[in-house]
Amino acid sequence: LSTAPTKPAPRLDLRGIYPPLATPFMAQGGVDYARLEDNLRLYAQVPFRGFVVQGSNGECPLLTGPERLDIVARVRRAVPRPRLLLAGSGCESTQATIELTAGMAEAGADAVLVVTPCYYRGAMSTAALVLHYTQVAEASPVPVVLYSVPANTGLELPLEAVLALAPHPNVVGLKDSGGDITRLGLIVHKTRREDFQVLAGSAGFLLASYAVGAVGGVCALANVLGAPLCQLERLCQEGRWQEARDLQHRLIEPNAAVTRRFGVAGLKQAMEWFGYHGGPCRAPLLPLSEDQAAALRRAFTRNGWL
Amino acid sequence: LSTAPTKPAPRLDLRGIYPPLATPFMAQGGVDYARLEDNLRLYAQVPFRGFVVQGSNGECPLLTGPERLDIVARVRRAVPRPRLLLAGSGCESTQATIELTAGMAEAGADAVLVVTPCYYRGAMSTAALVLHYTQVAEASPVPVVLYSVPANTGLELPLEAVLALAPHPNVVGLKDSGGDITRLGLIVHKTRREDFQVLAGSAGFLLASYAVGAVGGVCALANVLGAPLCQLERLCQEGRWQEARDLQHRLIEPNAAVTRRFGVAGLKQAMEWFGYHGGPCRAPLLPLSEDQAAALRRAFTRNGWL
Amino acid sequence: LSTAPTKPAPRLDLRGIYPPLATPFMAQGGVDYARLEDNLRLYAQVPFRGFVVQGSNGECPLLTGPERLDIVARVRRAVPRPRLLLAGSGCESTQATIELTAGMAEAGADAVLVVTPCYYRGAMSTAALVLHYTQVAEASPVPVVLYSVPANTGLELPLEAVLALAPHPNVVGLKDSGGDITRLGLIVHKTRREDFQVLAGSAGFLLASYAVGAVGGVCALANVLGAPLCQLERLCQEGRWQEARDLQHRLIEPNAAVTRRFGVAGLKQAMEWFGYHGGPCRAPLLPLSEDQAAALRRAFTRNGWL
Amino acid sequence: LSTAPTKPAPRLDLRGIYPPLATPFMAQGGVDYARLEDNLRLYAQVPFRGFVVQGSNGECPLLTGPERLDIVARVRRAVPRPRLLLAGSGCESTQATIELTAGMAEAGADAVLVVTPCYYRGAMSTAALVLHYTQVAEASPVPVVLYSVPANTGLELPLEAVLALAPHPNVVGLKDSGGDITRLGLIVHKTRREDFQVLAGSAGFLLASYAVGAVGGVCALANVLGAPLCQLERLCQEGRWQEARDLQHRLIEPNAAVTRRFGVAGLKQAMEWFGYHGGPCRAPLLPLSEDQAAALRRAFTRNGWL
Repeated sequence: LSTAPTKPAPRLDLRGIYPPLATPFMAQGGVDYARLEDNLRLYAQVPFRGFVVQGSNGECPLLTGPERLDIVARVRRAVPRPRLLLAGSGCESTQATIELTAGMAEAGADAVLVVTPCYYRGAMSTAALVLHYTQVAEASPVPVVLYSVPANTGLELPLEAVLALAPHPNVVGLKDSGGDITRLGLIVHKTRREDFQVLAGSAGFLLASYAVGAVGGVCALANVLGAPLCQLERLCQEGRWQEARDLQHRLIEPNAAVTRRFGVAGLKQAMEWFGYHGGPCRAPLLPLSEDQAAALRRAFTRNGWL
Repeated sequence: LSTAPTKPAPRLDLRGIYPPLATPFMAQGGVDYARLEDNLRLYAQVPFRGFVVQGSNGECPLLTGPERLDIVARVRRAVPRPRLLLAGSGCESTQATIELTAGMAEAGADAVLVVTPCYYRGAMSTAALVLHYTQVAEASPVPVVLYSVPANTGLELPLEAVLALAPHPNVVGLKDSGGDITRLGLIVHKTRREDFQVLAGSAGFLLASYAVGAVGGVCALANVLGAPLCQLERLCQEGRWQEARDLQHRLIEPNAAVTRRFGVAGLKQAMEWFGYHGGPCRAPLLPLSEDQAAALRRAFTRNGWL
Repeated sequence: LSTAPTKPAPRLDLRGIYPPLATPFMAQGGVDYARLEDNLRLYAQVPFRGFVVQGSNGECPLLTGPERLDIVARVRRAVPRPRLLLAGSGCESTQATIELTAGMAEAGADAVLVVTPCYYRGAMSTAALVLHYTQVAEASPVPVVLYSVPANTGLELPLEAVLALAPHPNVVGLKDSGGDITRLGLIVHKTRREDFQVLAGSAGFLLASYAVGAVGGVCALANVLGAPLCQLERLCQEGRWQEARDLQHRLIEPNAAVTRRFGVAGLKQAMEWFGYHGGPCRAPLLPLSEDQAAALRRAFTRNGWL
Repeated sequence: LSTAPTKPAPRLDLRGIYPPLATPFMAQGGVDYARLEDNLRLYAQVPFRGFVVQGSNGECPLLTGPERLDIVARVRRAVPRPRLLLAGSGCESTQATIELTAGMAEAGADAVLVVTPCYYRGAMSTAALVLHYTQVAEASPVPVVLYSVPANTGLELPLEAVLALAPHPNVVGLKDSGGDITRLGLIVHKTRREDFQVLAGSAGFLLASYAVGAVGGVCALANVLGAPLCQLERLCQEGRWQEARDLQHRLIEPNAAVTRRFGVAGLKQAMEWFGYHGGPCRAPLLPLSEDQAAALRRAFTRNGWL
């Protein structure tokens, strides 16, 4: 194994922490760009590598096509390079994904994050997914990051598909939100000679992901606790694993509360407590009940964050 | 129980068999309206109650917004009343669903079929779904049929939500594709005093659905074997259960082949064998391999259909 | 298809309704044979085809080996032929299943009901299950009924395994508790030339099962509402489907309450209300809470049974 | 958080690596104690903390009661203290678990490993499981290790149950084979003031488990690659994470091959290649096909182990 070729220099260095930006709305329902820019001004002080726009936490399935492009353009204006802007552009059809990808690139995205199509999940074989992503990557003017999020899609991008796509020159990595750390380690291992980087898709397993070779994380919780997550990144990079572990432990419950337990509504409520603009979600997402908000708050207080 | 009020007369009589129309495409990718109209001319000779446009089998997630409305308008022109035209109008956001519903009604739909939003399935509580459907039903100019299809959405519309929505004057029924016959019988039972009708969502459990009180079926297989399915309906209505059973039995394997096993690509291939225009699917759906096509064909031949 | 050989005369006629007998326990924990015999005296007045001993509802995984054989012997003494006695004899290992099967036959069972082994469910391929059942059937002095109950085992006996086993001369049928009516119809269809009978495994889909060709049912609810279930059987046999439907509808909620919702503890509680001996379950099964008991009772009262 | 009480000294120090011993059988079917002792002689040279007897990999559901006790007694004789002997004693009934636990202790077990009862999984609420384990722990003469293995049981021991049981003086830890690293970290965090230790249940996520605070692992793969696993343990303890990662990566595929992919039959086949006695499994477990054996071998060869 010692004579194996080493990993090539990355076309796009993805290392670091990214908040998948929440989308503030006005009471009448439109996107509240002023509040979004307020949030970005605050985030500018956190050593994030960049931002994900139009991930699941941005309520992108609830946005119109023009809104999706406008948000990317506005965020790009507020966030100069070298901060990265990764934009979600995955649609159910290959053609629509290709078109939205082009639009995102034009609006200023440095790369696109392409979620697995899933409505026809019974037909989404490895072959179908490899062809879909290959066609998108061929057509895309910017690098493509694969995106597997079974909690939303009911579908995990198969390991075989990831490995088949990793050598493609325009596929630069994977955001994996499934949380299967064995799979994540194996993907790092099997792509060790490729220009391919793995990002953890949630703060709950961020330390473990670094331990097995991920290069960063796209974490909903970074909308709320960005500095501690960047601190966790630094501790892992410096090999200060005991401190990292103590910090990671205190982040698990808050993270679960703003993702699996209370979803985007929980994330936006918590943002308010930490000085950011969260605000309402679009229907059919409901606001939190009082009991839910109290439970959400406890997840932060009992871990020393509030 | 004997003094219970009886079921009111239906606002819209849904009784009967409906094919969820497949959408033919041209080699260059556009919708092939000529071939679609050819199919409708052939279907005019089958005693269908009507047609579903933009169900899962119509590849509606792979169509553009304008295409979706155009197809409804074209089908309406080809299919005069009293044949019913049910159009799929469910989107992830409540607002988008309301807007598409209005567009479908204007394009000529007699009712809309609204699939459960599902991307945020972890947040799709009974309360969230009841509010979503209530807002859509309030706004819709035409009656609303609920649509639960867990194989595509990874989410079953909960019984409690169905029962809460059944009394709404603009909610007239449910298409249930889950195949849980116990649940289906219970829904019929618990809505026995409401203007609410249940349609089976697949030919595999059509006879059983009639036996427990469904009024019809939306069956992918009706694109291929429409006459036998209407014959099965008649046998059930006339109480000829032994003949119905023999016919039902011969339909299970062909039905599984054009749905669960080989999906829309299988359905479109089988349509070709029976004189209809099927043609290619849009990406990311793949065409059948030779082995798959042979297995599909066997499902028809060994049951005496080819 | 018209020249197909017809179904042979059954080696063992399974037609009819069977309660899977609950096992009463004394306060000190032993099996309460006196109360069990009281129940059997009451059941003697119901036109059951027979009884299942050591099904899931008999708490057989919580009984010792000697208790299991004793119960069969006692029930046999109390239940003369021609009533059938089907005894559960499935164990994780093939060898243990063969030995318990022999013991059950000696204790008086007319046939054995063999549940799928499931602890190594990842390894329970069709090939493994076919070999297991074949070895058991070869060794068994009495006919074997296959038993698929995914809610307990997390494993469905695959269709392919059922079809491979159906021709075996010592395999006479299947009890299917999964409730997938499409599968059930297909099994009836594909075994139409074999000496093979299908029993529904729950009262919730009994009418639908008759409609697609099942010959009877093993229904937990028959411990409580035996006469109505036998009445439902008769209505189906006589083709009185409207009456059958009305009766079936009123049985769905009570059935769900004594199975999926509240399990064996619910079944035993309901038995007490109808004059049978239920009594406590063995640990780790818990007694119902007051709220659960009230909800259980409502499932009977609001359907006119109490 | 700084004034929190610190973790108490453990009653039983579980730190380290344990193979869950495979059980060799003779061609005629009996337990092959001579070969088992041969294996133990070889394992004596590996710095294991101890051995698990009657875990899932020991085929314990396929053993008779007397065999289970005999194996524990034989292993104890071959493995003097301070090596630990953890014996699986979980049964479906609480009473049977208590009795087998007593037998295991008498046969020489230092602690028992109690798998969740699962046949009535629908009724295995947190309350039911907490009562079950509490009664077992009260009655047990030796410490109890909880055991959650959803791949076999279809049931995960709920977090709430683990936390309720952790303070019990006779409950000393958890073997978690589910592989959810977020959950594992949270359990370590929430039991940080208890005498409670967490063991990873598989080699695939061993490094990640150490990273989040586990104290060791019970790994099927240790029957084959014991020395590398103990080396991985040492690297983690010494903070040599880069070396640890490289080693962990090479273990993922062999581990998957002897667990999820090919099960106990795969484990036993691989043991033969590494100089141990594996031999046949008991029915209904099948031997590997030639193709399976070749794929198993590739999992070792392409990672440099053969």
